[in-house]
Amino acid sequence: MSSAKHHARRADAHRAPATPASLAASYAAVRQQTELLAAPLSPEDCALQSMPDASPVKWHLAHVSWFFETFVLAPHVAGYRPFDPAFRVLFNSYYNGVGDRHPRPERGLLSRPDLMTVLAYRRHVDAAMQRLLERPLHAQAAALVELGLHHEQQHQELLLTDVKHLFSRNPTRPVYHPRWPLATVAPRPHAWHRYEGGLVTLGHEGTDFAFDNEGPPHRVYVAPFELASAPVTHGEFAAFIADGGYRRPDLWLAQGWDLASSRSWEAPLYWERADAQWCTFTLHGIADIDPHTPVCHVSLYEADAYARWAGARLPTEFEWELAARAAPVAGNFLETGALHPLPRAGDSRAAGPGQLFGDVWEWTRSDYAPYPGYRPATGAVGEYNGKFMSNQYVLRGGSCVTPASHIRATYRNFFPADARWQFSGVRLARDQAA
Amino acid sequence: MSSAKHHARRADAHRAPATPASLAASYAAVRQQTELLAAPLSPEDCALQSMPDASPVKWHLAHVSWFFETFVLAPHVAGYRPFDPAFRVLFNSYYNGVGDRHPRPERGLLSRPDLMTVLAYRRHVDAAMQRLLERPLHAQAAALVELGLHHEQQHQELLLTDVKHLFSRNPTRPVYHPRWPLATVAPRPHAWHRYEGGLVTLGHEGTDFAFDNEGPPHRVYVAPFELASAPVTHGEFAAFIADGGYRRPDLWLAQGWDLASSRSWEAPLYWERADAQWCTFTLHGIADIDPHTPVCHVSLYEADAYARWAGARLPTEFEWELAARAAPVAGNFLETGALHPLPRAGDSRAAGPGQLFGDVWEWTRSDYAPYPGYRPATGAVGEYNGKFMSNQYVLRGGSCVTPASHIRATYRNFFPADARWQFSGVRLARDQAA
Amino acid sequence: MSSAKHHARRADAHRAPATPASLAASYAAVRQQTELLAAPLSPEDCALQSMPDASPVKWHLAHVSWFFETFVLAPHVAGYRPFDPAFRVLFNSYYNGVGDRHPRPERGLLSRPDLMTVLAYRRHVDAAMQRLLERPLHAQAAALVELGLHHEQQHQELLLTDVKHLFSRNPTRPVYHPRWPLATVAPRPHAWHRYEGGLVTLGHEGTDFAFDNEGPPHRVYVAPFELASAPVTHGEFAAFIADGGYRRPDLWLAQGWDLASSRSWEAPLYWERADAQWCTFTLHGIADIDPHTPVCHVSLYEADAYARWAGARLPTEFEWELAARAAPVAGNFLETGALHPLPRAGDSRAAGPGQLFGDVWEWTRSDYAPYPGYRPATGAVGEYNGKFMSNQYVLRGGSCVTPASHIRATYRNFFPADARWQFSGVRLARDQAA
Amino acid sequence: MSSAKHHARRADAHRAPATPASLAASYAAVRQQTELLAAPLSPEDCALQSMPDASPVKWHLAHVSWFFETFVLAPHVAGYRPFDPAFRVLFNSYYNGVGDRHPRPERGLLSRPDLMTVLAYRRHVDAAMQRLLERPLHAQAAALVELGLHHEQQHQELLLTDVKHLFSRNPTRPVYHPRWPLATVAPRPHAWHRYEGGLVTLGHEGTDFAFDNEGPPHRVYVAPFELASAPVTHGEFAAFIADGGYRRPDLWLAQGWDLASSRSWEAPLYWERADAQWCTFTLHGIADIDPHTPVCHVSLYEADAYARWAGARLPTEFEWELAARAAPVAGNFLETGALHPLPRAGDSRAAGPGQLFGDVWEWTRSDYAPYPGYRPATGAVGEYNGKFMSNQYVLRGGSCVTPASHIRATYRNFFPADARWQFSGVRLARDQAA
Repeated sequence: MSSAKHHARRADAHRAPATPASLAASYAAVRQQTELLAAPLSPEDCALQSMPDASPVKWHLAHVSWFFETFVLAPHVAGYRPFDPAFRVLFNSYYNGVGDRHPRPERGLLSRPDLMTVLAYRRHVDAAMQRLLERPLHAQAAALVELGLHHEQQHQELLLTDVKHLFSRNPTRPVYHPRWPLATVAPRPHAWHRYEGGLVTLGHEGTDFAFDNEGPPHRVYVAPFELASAPVTHGEFAAFIADGGYRRPDLWLAQGWDLASSRSWEAPLYWERADAQWCTFTLHGIADIDPHTPVCHVSLYEADAYARWAGARLPTEFEWELAARAAPVAGNFLETGALHPLPRAGDSRAAGPGQLFGDVWEWTRSDYAPYPGYRPATGAVGEYNGKFMSNQYVLRGGSCVTPASHIRATYRNFFPADARWQFSGVRLARDQAA
Repeated sequence: MSSAKHHARRADAHRAPATPASLAASYAAVRQQTELLAAPLSPEDCALQSMPDASPVKWHLAHVSWFFETFVLAPHVAGYRPFDPAFRVLFNSYYNGVGDRHPRPERGLLSRPDLMTVLAYRRHVDAAMQRLLERPLHAQAAALVELGLHHEQQHQELLLTDVKHLFSRNPTRPVYHPRWPLATVAPRPHAWHRYEGGLVTLGHEGTDFAFDNEGPPHRVYVAPFELASAPVTHGEFAAFIADGGYRRPDLWLAQGWDLASSRSWEAPLYWERADAQWCTFTLHGIADIDPHTPVCHVSLYEADAYARWAGARLPTEFEWELAARAAPVAGNFLETGALHPLPRAGDSRAAGPGQLFGDVWEWTRSDYAPYPGYRPATGAVGEYNGKFMSNQYVLRGGSCVTPASHIRATYRNFFPADARWQFSGVRLARDQAA
Repeated sequence: MSSAKHHARRADAHRAPATPASLAASYAAVRQQTELLAAPLSPEDCALQSMPDASPVKWHLAHVSWFFETFVLAPHVAGYRPFDPAFRVLFNSYYNGVGDRHPRPERGLLSRPDLMTVLAYRRHVDAAMQRLLERPLHAQAAALVELGLHHEQQHQELLLTDVKHLFSRNPTRPVYHPRWPLATVAPRPHAWHRYEGGLVTLGHEGTDFAFDNEGPPHRVYVAPFELASAPVTHGEFAAFIADGGYRRPDLWLAQGWDLASSRSWEAPLYWERADAQWCTFTLHGIADIDPHTPVCHVSLYEADAYARWAGARLPTEFEWELAARAAPVAGNFLETGALHPLPRAGDSRAAGPGQLFGDVWEWTRSDYAPYPGYRPATGAVGEYNGKFMSNQYVLRGGSCVTPASHIRATYRNFFPADARWQFSGVRLARDQAA
Repeated sequence: MSSAKHHARRADAHRAPATPASLAASYAAVRQQTELLAAPLSPEDCALQSMPDASPVKWHLAHVSWFFETFVLAPHVAGYRPFDPAFRVLFNSYYNGVGDRHPRPERGLLSRPDLMTVLAYRRHVDAAMQRLLERPLHAQAAALVELGLHHEQQHQELLLTDVKHLFSRNPTRPVYHPRWPLATVAPRPHAWHRYEGGLVTLGHEGTDFAFDNEGPPHRVYVAPFELASAPVTHGEFAAFIADGGYRRPDLWLAQGWDLASSRSWEAPLYWERADAQWCTFTLHGIADIDPHTPVCHVSLYEADAYARWAGARLPTEFEWELAARAAPVAGNFLETGALHPLPRAGDSRAAGPGQLFGDVWEWTRSDYAPYPGYRPATGAVGEYNGKFMSNQYVLRGGSCVTPASHIRATYRNFFPADARWQFSGVRLARDQAA
C-alpha cells in the first residue's frame, strides 16, 4: 500500500451487499479499534511527523474520517454538513479528483486542529454514519463503506509503524506499550516445501471484499519451485551480518549497494549494538534480538542480498500466492497484542510452510504492476491503487500489526525497495532441484 | 543573537552584585513572563518545529531552565539533583563545553518529555533557584543568574517569532492573540537628522549588565552622517515593490539577488496579496498592511536593496549607537501587548530620530565582529557569543516582542543576511551632504 | 542496458565458436565503426560530461578498450603489458570484481589522458588483439571477444546519445552531422494487429550470441492482445500535448506526475517551441518536428500517460517479443546514417506491425527482472547485467543509433522510468476486444 | 575579487591618462602573459570545469577578451564588428547591465567554441585594440583599457588556481610545470612588530590605477597592535594539526566547525598523508610539505582557528594596510615562476614584517564592506565590485601567482570564508601588550 494507502472496491462486485446491521457493527468495531491504538498517546505524540514517509497519528485519525465524509456522507446523505470545510484540503492524502491537498511533508506543521478537535471530528462523522447505517443502503454506498473500513485498517497498521519510527528518533526511548510478549522457544529445523506450479489462475475472485489491484483473476505459468518453511529469523540475519553481508558488493543489487553505502547501513532499521550484542527498538522499548523470531524492518535490497548469501532467492508474488492459498489465514496479527514478530509455534515440518500470514510482510521480487485486464474504479476513488504502479515491490501476508480481518492470500501490499519502517521480512524460495 | 542566543557576563564587572532579594524578584518576574507567553498555546502548538532555524516552544521553556540548572544550580548548590539527567543533552543548545547535544533540526521530533513534564521541570528548577536566592550569593553565581535572566528574555522573543512562523505554515491560520492593537494615524513627514561624528568611544561601559559582545568600550572614527527620523514603513516598502524593486538586479547585492530569485521572493515574509491589496500574517491573524507602521520581516538583502532604491544606505552599527545613546530607551516593546509594529506617536521633527527602540530590529551594514580587545568568558559560558562572529550582521534597537528591560543602546543582535522571521526592519542613513 | 552497459556471454553456449578469421574481421569492423563515430568531434567535444548519466566520448573510447584489455588480453595473453596500469581503475565502469573505479560523476574531470593518448591506447589494444586473433583461440576467450564486440556496439549508441545531450546544453547549438535525412511522406492509417497469445516459450535459445539476461528460455502465459501497427508519431504526441496531456494528473502514474511537475516537463526532451511550432534538437541541429516520424526522447512516465490518454496501454515485454519474433530484423539503424527516426516506409496494413526494429526503443511496462532460472556468469563479467535488476523497465527493438548487427527479438534494453536521453518511444497495446 | 573578478576605474581619476604608446605596450605584455600561462595546456585541459567556483581556462581566455570587446571596442570604435554575437551572452560573467549570461556552473558544458576558436577570438580583439591604441584615446576609454588589463591580470591568477584544482581531481596527477623551485633554508626565529596605530587615513589616493573598492581614502582609528614577522608556515600548521587542531571545537568559529565536520576537513586543501608524512599537490605535482614555506589553501575558518590556537588573532584589513604601506611591493610573484610559496629570504628581524607581498594572500578578519563614501562607477562596469559586498572577507598582499604589477598596499581581494582553492594563508596579529 506504500506510504500511500489505497484501494477501490472492485467494480464488478455482484455479490450481495452487507446488510446495514452487519455493516454498522463492523463500522463500530473498526472505528473503536483505531481509537484504542491511539489511546496510550499524548497530544504531542499524535502531532509529530518524523519523516516525509510517515504521518502524524492525528492525521491518520482525521484522514480515515475524511474518507467516509468525502466518499460516503457528502455524496449519499442529503444535506450533510461537513465538520469543517477546510478539512477537505487538509486531510486529502492524494486524491487529485477531490481537489487540492495539503503537502504530505508538511503534515507535521499542523498544531491545529488539535487532538481534541480531531476526536470531535470523528464523533461528528460517526454520528452521521450511524444514522446512515440504520436504514437500507444503496449497493454502491455500502461498497464504499466497506472500502472505507478496509482503508481504516490499513491506517491502523501505519499508525503503529509511524509511532514506532517517531519514538525511535527520541533519545529518551519512549515505550508505546510496556508489556513484553516474547517467550523463548527452542530453535527449529529449517525445511523446504516443494510446489509443482504449472498454468494456474491467480488473483482474487468471488464476491468477498478485495481491493481492485487483487484482480481480475488471470492465468499465470509458474515453474516448479520450493519455498522455505519459515521466514528468515533475527538469528539467521545476524549470521549474515557477522559474515560481512553488508560489506560484500557481490551480494547486492547495484542500487541497493549504493544506497546502503551512502546511508551507512550496517544492520536492519532499529538495530543497534550494545557491547557485543544486537538490540532492537520495539514498541515495548529496546530489547535484545531474539534469534528465533522473524527478522523485520529490512528493505527489499537487504532481503535480496540475504537470499543471495543463503544460496536462494526471493519468491515471486505468484509463487507466494500459490503456496498461501492453501494455508489458513491465521497467525500473529494486531489482535495478539504482541506488536512484534513471534517465534514459530507448532511443527515446522507440517503440511506446508508456516507463518505465511502475520508476523512480517514478506518481500517478493515482483514489481507492483497491473494484472492483465486490470481497470481502476471510476472517479476519485480510482486513484486508490493503480497510479502507484511504478518502482514499487509487492509484499505479502500481513504482519504483527495488521488486523486479522484485513488480510487474505491475494492481498498485495507494496513499498519502494528502500522502505524499512514497515514490519517487512524475508521468505526464501529457490528453483526446484531437477 | 541569531537563532543561537548568547552572552556571558563581562569578566571585568566591578559593580556591586544585585542583592538576593532583588535578584529573586527579577527571577520570579522573568520566569512568570515566559509562562504567560506560552499560556495561550496547546501542547501541540508547543511541540512542533516549523524549520531548522526555529525551535518548539516546549524546547524554549526547557532550555532556559537548563541554563539555570547547568550553569547555576549544578556548580553552586551542593547536592543539587537534576530533574532528569537526560535533559543535560536534550536541552543543550550549542555548548560544546557541556558535552553532547541533541541536533537542532530534530528538536521537533521529541514528543516526550511532554509539555506537562517540561512545566514540572520548570517548577523543579524554580524551587531550587528560590532556595538559592534566599541567601547571600557569591558574586560569580549572581552574575550567572543575571545572565540567565537576560538569556531567558532572549528566548521570550524567539518563542513568539517561532510560534508566528509555525502558525503561518498552517492553512487554518491560527491566531495567537485575538486582540488587534492598531489604530489608524495620519501620515507624517519624513526628515533627516544630522550627526557630526568624529573620534568617539562606543560599546558598553559601567557596571550594569551587558553581554560580553557589547564591549570593551573602544574608540571609533565616525564620519559625518545623517539618519532618518523613522523606520521605513509598510507603505514605503509597498511603493518599492510597486516600482519593481524585486525585479531590478541593479538594486541588489549579488548574493541577495540570487537568493531572492531562487526563493521567488516578491515581498517580505508573511506578505500575501488578496485582490489588489497586500495583507500580512500577524500574531493576531491575517490583516491588511497598515501603511504607517514600520515594515518588518525583511532580510538584510531586502533592507539594502530598499535603501539603494531610496538613494540612501543602511547605517553602520556605530552610527546607530551614536544616535541612540542620546535617546530614551522607550517604545513599543513586548509589554505593550501589540506584538506588531505600531505607527509613530508624537512629532517626527522632534529632537532626534524616533522609534530607535522597539517596533522593529534595525539592520545595520556592520558585520558581527569582535570589538578590539574582546575576550569571551572562560568556560562553556564563553561559547555564548564569540563563536558566532562570522557571516552575520548586526541589528539594533529591539522590537515589539523584545522585553523592555532587555534592551539598551549598546545591545548587538545578529542574524545571517537572509533571516526574515524576526521582526527586522529598515532605518535609512546617508552620508552628510557637503 | 541502462546508462550502465553490460552483458556476459551465456555460460551454456554449446555452439561452435567463431573462427579466428571471422572474429578478427568483426573486431576490425566494430572498432573502426566506433572511431568513425568519433571522427567529427574535437578533443573538447570528447572530454566533457553533461550529466552524471552520460559519459565523455573519450571515456567511451577508452572503456571499451579497457574491456578487451581486462577480460581478454590480461588473462589470455602471456606477458601482456597494459598500456598504462592506471587505466585499470580509471576506465572501470562498475566491476567491483576488478577492483576500484573512478567515480562515474567525475568522468568529466579528466583532461588527461587526452584524446590523442586514448587513441594511442586503442592502437595498443588493437595490435595485441590482432596478434591474438591470428591464431586458434580458446572457446572461452573467443566468447569474451564476442562479448566485447557487442559491448562496444552498446557504447556506440551511448556515444551518440551522450554527444547529443552535451550539444543540446550548448547555446551555440553545435551540429554533429549536417546532412538532414528526412523526406516528407504521406500520413498513413493506424491499425491494430491481433495476437492469440497462450502458453509460449520466450527468451533466447540456440547458439548465436545473446546476453545472459535474454535467457534462459522459459514458459510464459500471454493473454490475447493487440499491438499497434506503428510507433506513436511526433504528430500524435503533439496532439496529446495540445489536449493538456502534461496538465492532467489523472493520466499519469503518481511518481511520473510528481517528477514532471518538479522538473517542469511540458514536452519530450529536446523539444522547444518556436513561435507556434514545436522544434526539436537533433544530431543535425534544430529542426521542426516531422509529424509522421516516431516520437522519441520520452520517459516511461510520458509513454504511459500517452497510452492512457489514447485509451490503450504499453505492451509487456512478452507481448512485444511474441510479435517481434515473427518480424525481420530490419529497419532504420545506425548504418542508415539518419541518426533520427524516419517515417514508416511501405504499407502499414501489411502482415504485421511495422518499425518494431530500429527508429526508437519501445518502452514496455515490464520491469527488468531475472527470467526463471537466470544465473549470471561467474567472475567479474557476471556483473554485466544481473545486478541492475531493480527499478528499471525493459525497452525493446533498438533505435536509429543502434548498430544493425547488434539487435534481435529477444534483446532486453533497460533504463529507469525517468530516463529520456535515449531514443526511447512508444508502441501501444490493448487487451483484445472480447 | 572572489571567484568573481571586478574593479571599475575610479570615477574621480584626475591623473594624466596613460599615453597610447605605453598603453599599447602594456596591452601587448598582459595579453601575451595570459597566453603563456595557457601554453602548457591541452584543449581538454582548457575546456573542463572542476567545480562551480572555478572556470575553464578557455572561458578565462575568452572572458577577458569579451571585457575589451564589450566595454572598449563596442562603445568606442565606430563600426566595430564583434567576432561572434553569441559571445556577448556566452562570456558575460555577471554583468546584468550587459544582458543575459550563460550560467556559471555550466561553463564546463561548452565544447564549442573550441580552443582554436577562442584563440582566434583573442586575435580578433587584439587587432582591433592595437588599431585603437595607435591613436590618441579619450580619457574614459583609456581608463577602461587600463581596467581591462588589471581585470585580465586577475584572471591570470584564477587561471592557475583553477587549473590546479582541476588537476588535483585527476588520479593521474598531471603536472602543470615540471620545474620545482624550492630550496631548503634554515628555520628562522619568529618576531612581533609593534604599531602605535591612531587616527589614520587609509585607502587608495592619488592618480595611479586602483579599483573603486580601494577608495575613497577615509579616516580610521586603529588601536595599538603587533604583527607577526612572517606568515604562518607549513611546519607551524602541521604542529596545529598534530595538536588536534581539527578536533577541538573550542578553537573554531561555530560555522567553521560545522563546515569542517560536514566536509571532513583534517588539513588544508591539497594536503594528503603518505605514510607518516604530509604531502601537498602543487602545480609541479605532489611534493612533501616544506616546513619553512608559508602555508596556503586554508579557509578563513582554518586561519582563525590556527590564530586562536596560537594565542593570537587575525589582523584587520586596516592593521594590515597600515603595516604594508611602509613596505616595498616586492616578493615571490607570478614572475618568479615558482608558482608556490617560498621560504623567507633575508633577516626576519629586519625593519618590518616580511613577505607581506607575494607568496600567499593573507586573510584578514575584516568583512568586505564599502568604505565610507564609496560609490560604484555608473553603468554595467559598476557591477565590478560593490555588489559582492556581503558575506566575504578581505585578503591582502597578493600571492605567488599574482602578477607583480597588479598588487599594492591598498588592494582588497575578497572571498567567502570557506574558500580554499586560492593561495590563501595566515598572518598573525595581536593586541599590543600594555
